[in-house]
Amino acid sequence: MDFDALFNAQLDQLKQDGNYRYFADLERACGKFPKAASHFEDGKRDVTVWCSNDYLGMGQHPKVVDAMCEAVRRTGTGAGGTRNISGTNHDHLLLEAELADLHGKEAALLFTSGYVSNWAALSTLGSRLKDCVILSDAGNHASMIEGIRHSRATKVIWKHNDVADLEAKLAALPADVPKIVAFESVYSMDGDIAPIEAIVDVAEKYGAMTYLDEVHGVGLYGARGGGVSERDGVADRITLIEGTLGKAFGVVGGYITGSAAMCDFIRSFASGFIFTTALPPAVAAAARASIVHLKNSDAERLQQRRQVARLRAELDKAGIPHLENDSHIVPVMIKDPVKCRMLADYLMTEWNIYVQPINYPTVPKGTERLRFTPSPLHTDEDIEHLMMALRTLWRQCAMSRAVA
Amino acid sequence: MDFDALFNAQLDQLKQDGNYRYFADLERACGKFPKAASHFEDGKRDVTVWCSNDYLGMGQHPKVVDAMCEAVRRTGTGAGGTRNISGTNHDHLLLEAELADLHGKEAALLFTSGYVSNWAALSTLGSRLKDCVILSDAGNHASMIEGIRHSRATKVIWKHNDVADLEAKLAALPADVPKIVAFESVYSMDGDIAPIEAIVDVAEKYGAMTYLDEVHGVGLYGARGGGVSERDGVADRITLIEGTLGKAFGVVGGYITGSAAMCDFIRSFASGFIFTTALPPAVAAAARASIVHLKNSDAERLQQRRQVARLRAELDKAGIPHLENDSHIVPVMIKDPVKCRMLADYLMTEWNIYVQPINYPTVPKGTERLRFTPSPLHTDEDIEHLMMALRTLWRQCAMSRAVA
Ligand SMILES: Cc1ncc(COP(=O)(O)O)c(C=O)c1O
Ligand SMILES: Cc1ncc(COP(=O)(O)O)c(C=O)c1O
Repeated sequence: MDFDALFNAQLDQLKQDGNYRYFADLERACGKFPKAASHFEDGKRDVTVWCSNDYLGMGQHPKVVDAMCEAVRRTGTGAGGTRNISGTNHDHLLLEAELADLHGKEAALLFTSGYVSNWAALSTLGSRLKDCVILSDAGNHASMIEGIRHSRATKVIWKHNDVADLEAKLAALPADVPKIVAFESVYSMDGDIAPIEAIVDVAEKYGAMTYLDEVHGVGLYGARGGGVSERDGVADRITLIEGTLGKAFGVVGGYITGSAAMCDFIRSFASGFIFTTALPPAVAAAARASIVHLKNSDAERLQQRRQVARLRAELDKAGIPHLENDSHIVPVMIKDPVKCRMLADYLMTEWNIYVQPINYPTVPKGTERLRFTPSPLHTDEDIEHLMMALRTLWRQCAMSRAVA
Repeated sequence: MDFDALFNAQLDQLKQDGNYRYFADLERACGKFPKAASHFEDGKRDVTVWCSNDYLGMGQHPKVVDAMCEAVRRTGTGAGGTRNISGTNHDHLLLEAELADLHGKEAALLFTSGYVSNWAALSTLGSRLKDCVILSDAGNHASMIEGIRHSRATKVIWKHNDVADLEAKLAALPADVPKIVAFESVYSMDGDIAPIEAIVDVAEKYGAMTYLDEVHGVGLYGARGGGVSERDGVADRITLIEGTLGKAFGVVGGYITGSAAMCDFIRSFASGFIFTTALPPAVAAAARASIVHLKNSDAERLQQRRQVARLRAELDKAGIPHLENDSHIVPVMIKDPVKCRMLADYLMTEWNIYVQPINYPTVPKGTERLRFTPSPLHTDEDIEHLMMALRTLWRQCAMSRAVA
């Protein structure tokens, strides 16, 4: 059987639809964020990265860099085993304690990524709580969807951020089955924020546990970077808070926090936790340094907010429509995969501005977009440069529409 | 609903069965492997680690340590995004090229772990190849089992390492459905090795693709560390070779290698590849340094083999039964979870020897074991010290049996 032919047929379809993905080939340069070198066919050039999820540039913060190097020299480059079989290092435990403290929970549990933490936690809860029903926000991330699917628990989808719909669906379920309300704080592609308190009110009313993905909230919201649930003062009412070490914290890895019993339960039964090499102790040490810094420093968050507001104001001035939201994410909707790629290619080629075109399956077809994530390290000049490029681009598009 | 009560009930059951897991709390000490500090209630002591999967101690090799620190200082601590959205770094591409070369394949694709590479690759192949049937060795790792399950493809289990059974099962399937024969080279808990060539012969006869997990083979077998498939000269006949960067290579991460079309296919469709932050460039750089070293150096492999043979010979002399196999893994069967933990606790407390008791679900119930993994860095004195401990232990057990 010609397997390559089968693969190529599906790849050709992707290409025809404009959904085939080309990855930028970057060289991050520590200390120069948001600048990075980008490899092209004809060589390497410096570009300004406008779509990083190293939201605060912590991936190059001297404290984080030093913590990682120190730990590599102290412990080596890897954990050397699964958590059970020689892979648990003291750095993991210190990080877990730090994370529990960040969210005001009894315990925390580390995973190799945020993806794996969602997948493993939800598939374990859903499959081991008898008759469990998972009520999943329609906008939930792939990692949650896959975890729920894998659990084979009954899944009920409620309308995105719609508390009334959630309540109707909770009310329709038998009182005595375990229910999990799963949702995110900041939805990464639209940048909208969940009404967490209202969701918790309803969940509590029906005895459901709450599962909150704070992947795009941790480090960025709340006085100590505990996420939107900290900002809104409701963290103590959430049963399980999940997060990542790979975005605002600038490293890699994921985690859950909650009661000691729940973390121990998932530790003991989750295949995706048990059967995999632990994160390098140096990754844990770096992440911890980043968390500790952001617990004590608001400067990065404040400056990020300033630059986000500035970009929004400039877009408004230029008449370039963008999705309104209360977060740090600025989506400019293009609504066509081919056009979206063309615009991004033009920005890269003509302006050395890198913003990845976001297409299916990351967003629904027809909602393709350029997604900008201003960081505290994007200067006013960086914003002005981006705006010059966008103004030029929008003018050209208007012209080409006029002559079409 | 009292969720903690539900969790605790299942944890209590685990404890009653002797299957509850206690993790050692280690501090790896770079340059001292296999020694590490271990935290106990009454303080911290140096122990000798006898169960690490940093099989060759590469996690502390100066070249690997230096490569990681160099790359952290050069690129920072994280990738800053998913592979698609600003997360692809040149270090990832260099590593992928290195891995393709290691296995003599057109292409390679990196994942955050070996677990995720198996899960994502098998679930994508199984779900996107229409009518696909996956023929899975009965001994396959959890990550493969979960990937197959997630794909919802038809699964046929063949008897562990039994080529005749595989052939019978292949022959019973319609000729025109896509078939994937999924198996491992070195089975990590028994240490037995698959008859790869015979499996490939049969798979080819029936037009099936072959999916080989070399997680416990890479770095350790073959002239360049390409795994058992390299040693046996059959790598070019395997459709997909999967491996880890977290065991013999001493860092963290996983990968697949194969045709360019297949890697592109999985890159384009695998949820577990797409929706997650990329590995830090520094992890990729460290792994690459490790692979390059082991491509060019046999010294670690030879010394490991010597120490494995030495431990086996000593166990034989002492009359301590261990599973026969042709690999670097030395399992001493205890066949009871409570006894297994008692023996391990005794070794730790009385002898400062750390070997994790291996219990369910890592091995089937009733096959609990102590699993020793001698490395090139375990000295003859380390082996003699372990043997003194084991001889004492076995003598005491014989005595207690005599008086029972
Ligand atoms: C909402 C959400 N949850 C989880 C993840 C996965 O986290 P990680 O990148 O750490 O795997 C992502 C993105 O990557 C995400 O957007
Ligand atoms: C056979 C096998 N495959 C895959 C894995 C997963 O690899 P990783 O530890 O890189 O996640 C393991 C163990 O961890 C394994 O034993």
